[in-house]
Amino acid sequence: MSDRVYGKTVNEFIAEAMSSSPTPGGGNVSAVVATLGASMVCMVANLTIGKKAYVEFEDQAKEQVAKLSEIIERLKKLTNDDMEAFDQYMAVFRMPKSTDEEKKARAEAMQAAAKNATNVPLDICKTCAEIVKEAAKLAPYGNKMAISDVGVGAMVAETALRSAMLSVDINLPSIKDQDFVAQVKAERARLFVEAEENKLLALADVKKRMG
Amino acid sequence: MSDRVYGKTVNEFIAEAMSSSPTPGGGNVSAVVATLGASMVCMVANLTIGKKAYVEFEDQAKEQVAKLSEIIERLKKLTNDDMEAFDQYMAVFRMPKSTDEEKKARAEAMQAAAKNATNVPLDICKTCAEIVKEAAKLAPYGNKMAISDVGVGAMVAETALRSAMLSVDINLPSIKDQDFVAQVKAERARLFVEAEENKLLALADVKKRMG
Repeated sequence: MSDRVYGKTVNEFIAEAMSSSPTPGGGNVSAVVATLGASMVCMVANLTIGKKAYVEFEDQAKEQVAKLSEIIERLKKLTNDDMEAFDQYMAVFRMPKSTDEEKKARAEAMQAAAKNATNVPLDICKTCAEIVKEAAKLAPYGNKMAISDVGVGAMVAETALRSAMLSVDINLPSIKDQDFVAQVKAERARLFVEAEENKLLALADVKKRMG
Repeated sequence: MSDRVYGKTVNEFIAEAMSSSPTPGGGNVSAVVATLGASMVCMVANLTIGKKAYVEFEDQAKEQVAKLSEIIERLKKLTNDDMEAFDQYMAVFRMPKSTDEEKKARAEAMQAAAKNATNVPLDICKTCAEIVKEAAKLAPYGNKMAISDVGVGAMVAETALRSAMLSVDINLPSIKDQDFVAQVKAERARLFVEAEENKLLALADVKKRMG
């Protein structure tokens, strides 16, 4: 069902995103932005393979292409999961709440939906952090002719992380399970720090090799 | 000819971007990322129209939708211009350079191509700064239910600006016209400062209204 996003033309996707229809929203768009960031890092890894000047990095570049291709596929699945999590949440709001039993069932479904609508964007964030890490790995050795695109990938993926995290921030206050909340908050802080550091490392190498 | 990007499915565009083919590269991808950012701001403006709670902002929201729609169309054209500027640059490298006359013609064409390959991403950057400005305008009054997506738009567009500016930074050192170089550098600094300020303003309002 990832055709809801990736099977559309870019024109169609943008037309839907800018319209008043609630999907695609910030979570999905962040995931698509992340795939674009990953694609730039992957391109530079691809441009490093089969080149005499980079023969000593051949295996490393191939590993990075494989890893980034897997990341892109994972993001496509997460984009779809994010839309489904949104649909699930909306469905819960339409559940009946006349009897006490209905109220209880609705409240429980609401908690489950809120956790799911937190976990999916958090997984998108984790994947974004992996992209920035791949960019930091590639920046010191990737094909110099296209090295600025590693910078594009690092910046775009780090922003996708910060954007997707807004979906986490929206849903977290409605979750009652405080162990879950504490875990998410710790992971949130860790991801911001890790991605920021890797972005700065990547950009430092990119600038050095551009100049 | 914007079908080279926007007429493709998102899947096809990503497959091309991650491949070793030099286009689409960082410039085009930054422009697409910017359209995604603009689409999020536009969506929230659209969600503010026709709602009782926001009736006093109706005209302002409509103006913003019109402005952002125009920005998105402009970015589509700039994406195409960026690909053409790259093609033009590559064509100059293939020009003959046997005679003095050929060398002179080639050097002149190279300077023109370098200026064009600087102006187009700079125009992309200017357009990104406009998106962030629209986000800062919308953040204080846009539909609260989707206000986090204004934050997504502001962050994504500011990063698209920084990403597209790497294309400026690559081409600027090869330009001999020092007046041109000085103007671009001044504009570069101005855009970074303006977009950063507007992003922070937008995010401050978004966080306030999310909590």
